[in-house]
Parts: sequence; C-alpha cells; structure tokens
Amino acid sequence: MIPYGRSAGVDPGEQVRRAVVKKDVAVDAESGDNRERILDAARRRFTAQGYTGTTIRQIAADVGVDLALVHYFFGTKDALFVAAMELPLNPATTASEMIAEARTGDFGVRLVRRLLDIWQDAASQNPMLAMVRSAATHDEAARMLREFFADVVVGPVVASLEMDEPELRVSLASSQITGLAFVRHVIQLEPLASADPDTVAAWVGPTIQRYLTAPVPNP
Amino acid sequence: MIPYGRSAGVDPGEQVRRAVVKKDVAVDAESGDNRERILDAARRRFTAQGYTGTTIRQIAADVGVDLALVHYFFGTKDALFVAAMELPLNPATTASEMIAEARTGDFGVRLVRRLLDIWQDAASQNPMLAMVRSAATHDEAARMLREFFADVVVGPVVASLEMDEPELRVSLASSQITGLAFVRHVIQLEPLASADPDTVAAWVGPTIQRYLTAPVPNP
Repeated sequence: MIPYGRSAGVDPGEQVRRAVVKKDVAVDAESGDNRERILDAARRRFTAQGYTGTTIRQIAADVGVDLALVHYFFGTKDALFVAAMELPLNPATTASEMIAEARTGDFGVRLVRRLLDIWQDAASQNPMLAMVRSAATHDEAARMLREFFADVVVGPVVASLEMDEPELRVSLASSQITGLAFVRHVIQLEPLASADPDTVAAWVGPTIQRYLTAPVPNP
Repeated sequence: MIPYGRSAGVDPGEQVRRAVVKKDVAVDAESGDNRERILDAARRRFTAQGYTGTTIRQIAADVGVDLALVHYFFGTKDALFVAAMELPLNPATTASEMIAEARTGDFGVRLVRRLLDIWQDAASQNPMLAMVRSAATHDEAARMLREFFADVVVGPVVASLEMDEPELRVSLASSQITGLAFVRHVIQLEPLASADPDTVAAWVGPTIQRYLTAPVPNP
C-alpha cells in the first residue's frame, strides 16, 4: 500500500513512542496544534535551506518541542518532507517497492501504471503539480526537490540495482517520468493527456524498464 | 542546417518580395523599427489569444503595416511565432527533417543528439527554459505552447508517419524530450545534467525511435 499525504510514514517505532509517553506530552489536546506547527516550521526550513541542509533537530527547536515528538508524529526526515510538502506519495516507499519488483520482466509497466493512478487521485489537490511548477520557476525549490530525490530515491535504488552506471539509469528513468507528468498534467498535450492508463503504461513501462536494467549502450 | 532565433524561416518567396518592392517600402531606413514593432505585436497577440486564434493579418493591423511586409520579414506564421518567442529553433523545420530521417534505424539517436546541441547553445540566453517555465505556471502560456506544437509539429509528423496512432506516438516522444530538457536543464539532476551528449543520445534515442515507429503494444 502506498502511504498518502499527511498520513505518510507515521510509524514512530516503539522506542520513540515510549520516550514520548515517558515525557507525558499531552498528545490528545495539543497534538493537532503541535503537528501543524511542526509542518509549518518544516516547510520554512526545507524551503530556506534545502533538504540536505535541514535537520529534524532544527525544526523541533523552531517549534520548541522535543526532538522525539517530531519523530513520534512523522517518523523519518523523508516522511516529514512528504507531509510538509503534501506530496501524494513517499518516493522512499515507492523506491523500495520498485527494488523488490525490479527483477521481474514487467515491473516498468506496473510502476508507470501505479504512478498514473497516484497522479490521477492527486489531481484535485494538485500538490505534485504545485511542486513541479515551483521547481520550474524557483531555484530553491528545484534544489530542494533535487536533493530530496537524490537522497531518498536515487540512493536506495542505486544501492540495490547492482548494475553499471546506476545513477545515470535512475536519472534517465526520472526524465521520462517527469516528462510524462509534465505533458499529461501540466501542458496537457493530447492525446497523451487523456489516454487510458493501461495504454500509457504499455508504451512507457518498457522505457523505464530498459533505462534501469538494459545493458549500457555504446555511444 | 537548423535556423536559429530571429533569422529562422526568413524566406519570403519571390511573389511577396515583388509585392513589397512595388509598394516601395523604405526597407533600409525603417525596417529595424517595423521589425521590432511586429515582434512586439506578435508577442502580445499570441499571449492573449493563443497560437491558433492569432492571425498575421491582426498583427499587421496592430502595427499599421501591410500584411505583405510581415510575410516579407518573417515568412510564415510559425516562423513569426519562433522569432517572437525567441525560440532556439523552428520546430516545423526540425519536424520535416525528422520525417526525412524517420525511416532509418538510428534517427532517434540523431534527433536527440541534435536537440542536446541546440539546448546547449541556447543555455546562455535561455529562451526555451523561459518558455517551459512560463508554460509550467501560466495556463495561457501552456495553451499557446500546446496549440503551436499541435499545429506545427504534430500535424506534419503525423501526416508523414503512416503508422497506427500517430498523434499518440508524437505526444509520447514529446514527453521524453520535454522530460529530458526538464531534468537536464531545469532541475539539473545529476549525473544526467552533465552527462556527455553522445551517451545521452545512445540511451534516449532508441526511446524516441520506438515511440514513433515500433508496433503498438498490447495493454
């Protein structure tokens, strides 16, 4: 299952939970407030300092809460980023699912099919499009997206691919996925903009599969 | 040879040339002024009304010059659009070159190689990036780009491909080309952002070739 929006990655782990309970934080009454204040602080920090340059410790200090409370609400830094930016999925989770499927022949098709579903569901709220638009016009947003992507998606996928030139493969796959989102949802060029998901996946899936697993071509 | 920027498509044809000469327009003295005024009017019209809704007649009327003078300076409507938007190439010209090459096995590689060169040269002035950025954030700009692309690129390529589902093929190829431009030049994700053009063409070229000429896959 793909975690969605604000509930993404809320899996604190028993150790963190116990630490929070011991401190007797009034989770019921104040949790909503603290949660929103943490998200606000996270948005400010990520935008100002990028993904890599921001720590959960800084965000906790901004809000004046314990570090453990941030972990309690959001788990890891990438899950906090996903929640703060209201992304429709956690690319880290998707990346590990991709890795698990990467050895089978049609995982490219399944990946594209799943992305199309996610984009469709998210279309009404448009956080992903807002982020792509923002990255297209603001250098800070582009840097934030690039750093997050490199840390959270490229790192794990590359580590597991065991292929030549894994980083280049992942950025090539990203170029097709980004372009598909851009042409289908931003520019809305027909007939791709309204082509049915199975057809699009049958065309684009093998491209992703080839970028990630085919032998390196001779230039 | 690919026509560049403001010189793109300046091929008035003998008939138009004679018409202008007969009217004895003071081309030498006033041509610079008139040329700039035509470009300004074109930018305003295209932005306000889109590509399809704008006519060369309207632009000539805005400036108060003869229709033939606009044709004399810029040739066709698509060439005027290219000049007004300062695009680094005329997609109509590139499209006909693509068509001529489309039957050979590696035209995808050659197309991508050429696009990479063009984007590289244009990087200092950035008109293409400005247009992509504009399309990402303004619905009018997205509509203008979509209409221009559909009329000028999709139309001629589709007419010549003689394949099943030609429009879908062209929009799929566009998604990979747009995504490559976006990831390499806007988001600048490494290592694709600085990979050498031959390597990128060897990877991405076969994708374009497949979208345009491979059999339709079963969903």
